[in-house]
Amino acid sequence: MSNPVLVNTLRGEIIENRHRGAIAVCDPKGRLVHRWGDVDALVYPRSSIKALQALPLVESGAADHFDLSSAELALACSSHSGEPLHTTTVHDWLTRLGLDETALECGPHAPVNEKAATALILKHIEFARVHNNCSGKHTGMLTTVRFLGEETHGYIEREHPAQQRWMDALGEMSDLDMQRLPWSRDGCGIPVIAMPLKAIATAFARIAVPDDLAATRAGAIDRITTAIAANPFMVAGSGRLCTQIMELTGRRIIVKTGADGVYTAALRDKNLGVALKIDDGTGAAAEVAILAVLTKLDSLHAAELEALTARCRMPIINTRGVLTGYRESTGL
Amino acid sequence: MSNPVLVNTLRGEIIENRHRGAIAVCDPKGRLVHRWGDVDALVYPRSSIKALQALPLVESGAADHFDLSSAELALACSSHSGEPLHTTTVHDWLTRLGLDETALECGPHAPVNEKAATALILKHIEFARVHNNCSGKHTGMLTTVRFLGEETHGYIEREHPAQQRWMDALGEMSDLDMQRLPWSRDGCGIPVIAMPLKAIATAFARIAVPDDLAATRAGAIDRITTAIAANPFMVAGSGRLCTQIMELTGRRIIVKTGADGVYTAALRDKNLGVALKIDDGTGAAAEVAILAVLTKLDSLHAAELEALTARCRMPIINTRGVLTGYRESTGL
Repeated sequence: MSNPVLVNTLRGEIIENRHRGAIAVCDPKGRLVHRWGDVDALVYPRSSIKALQALPLVESGAADHFDLSSAELALACSSHSGEPLHTTTVHDWLTRLGLDETALECGPHAPVNEKAATALILKHIEFARVHNNCSGKHTGMLTTVRFLGEETHGYIEREHPAQQRWMDALGEMSDLDMQRLPWSRDGCGIPVIAMPLKAIATAFARIAVPDDLAATRAGAIDRITTAIAANPFMVAGSGRLCTQIMELTGRRIIVKTGADGVYTAALRDKNLGVALKIDDGTGAAAEVAILAVLTKLDSLHAAELEALTARCRMPIINTRGVLTGYRESTGL
Repeated sequence: MSNPVLVNTLRGEIIENRHRGAIAVCDPKGRLVHRWGDVDALVYPRSSIKALQALPLVESGAADHFDLSSAELALACSSHSGEPLHTTTVHDWLTRLGLDETALECGPHAPVNEKAATALILKHIEFARVHNNCSGKHTGMLTTVRFLGEETHGYIEREHPAQQRWMDALGEMSDLDMQRLPWSRDGCGIPVIAMPLKAIATAFARIAVPDDLAATRAGAIDRITTAIAANPFMVAGSGRLCTQIMELTGRRIIVKTGADGVYTAALRDKNLGVALKIDDGTGAAAEVAILAVLTKLDSLHAAELEALTARCRMPIINTRGVLTGYRESTGL
């Protein structure tokens, strides 16, 4: 089965690039409310499920024990841009755990934010693990590990309780047996489990409406979504779409990008969850697609849509500063 | 019509990303020898046709007049990485034309080569027009403009003779009326004309076998392909696939990448031309696809294939240095 074209890139009058993909929109009962393409096929959610991976941090009592700030909790759910505020927060947090950067088992990479990367080069500072966009998630996992007195070394391995905990939580939230699904390694080293898009969308519908969940789970979700909405910069960074959407919508819409063309959303006003994957892994196309779904579902208000105009139909500018075309939805 | 999946990216056992596309293989008569997908649809060839755009530079007598080196001629056909050898060659060449960098009408961008970009940042040198991967092509166009005593200012405009000359040559080589095709602006500011893949492949078949062309044209092609094969570094740069292939094959296979998932090849041993476009514009997938076609056509020798193993089936390594999967052909 071939997924529909969701996003086109135009140069002049011609479609230069086409991006196919699938989108699932579910309610908290797991019912498919809308779908485009094959939502049963297995996809890796990558970083789009970080809010779910942070559930054990709150539910275990670790967040309380270490008196985590709302900014730190948001950072645990982030794919941050490696800007100074992100990295200093991770650094100070690790210190409070009695750890340092060497405890992080994600690999180093250049900060996603270009200015931040250039500033490091000029200071002759090597790109390090703290700059990895997942360093907040890793510090969150280490927080629970320290609280429970587990071995920190090897916390990224699939067998380690730190990984088993979020897999259990995600399984409960998506009605899946995570132990039976295909898996591999993510960019930062932790396991990635392949899941159907509709199961991911169901989990996010339950983030939007946690009413039918156990009180501890519902409380943890409430605290996490409040933290994310209060700290949209911590979840991504300067100029990033996740940050911009939540700066506009607050807690009404919780969105999260994932590598290779994944996006998720919990729509608290619509009682729905969304998960999408662009077949070819293009992140810029996933951004256009998530905005197209939010628009289709009437989730964005007029002023918000206005502020996001250049994101919904993204101008493509060449090296001379000339507009050559647009990246835009094909219309859902 | 939906093009076939040409390239997959695997993470673990699961296909994470799929790249559809079309490939045309033609002989010098314009006959389609092989095809995958829709080869009649219009695509922008982008930088993949730079060798054809350099024809007027030789045919006008400008290359002789300014005594261009073989390295400079290769640079006129390049999408270079902005490494010091590329930029100093452009700079010295412009000086010989009585011009400087301000005559270049391409915009500035960071060198494609990361080390070169970092070195500039450390020296507090701003990314400039000379670092644009197209600066060699632009200098080639300026060379002809100077030789013919034309106005240099505005040489990138469609109406300027500098642009009309290559459009005429490309039209002759591809049996198309370039004036009637849709067009827009390329990343560097010059016009891009949308063409069917099979017409692009035909032009490259005639580069492979120029025997039936007029003597001036055949001579220019001979000189250009000799220059490219003798200077594979000048055409791309360190670690680049175009450079690596021609370092291995010499003049037997002339290849050229273009932005947004385009690749072309002139196979002098097989008397064939190849043109391909990945639907979603992913360059890394186009690299895998061009190698799959060359392999399918038995154009690469065993030792060359051996040297290109990690390019044909490209390992994907995460930030921890762990292999997570491969980018590979689906099998043509």
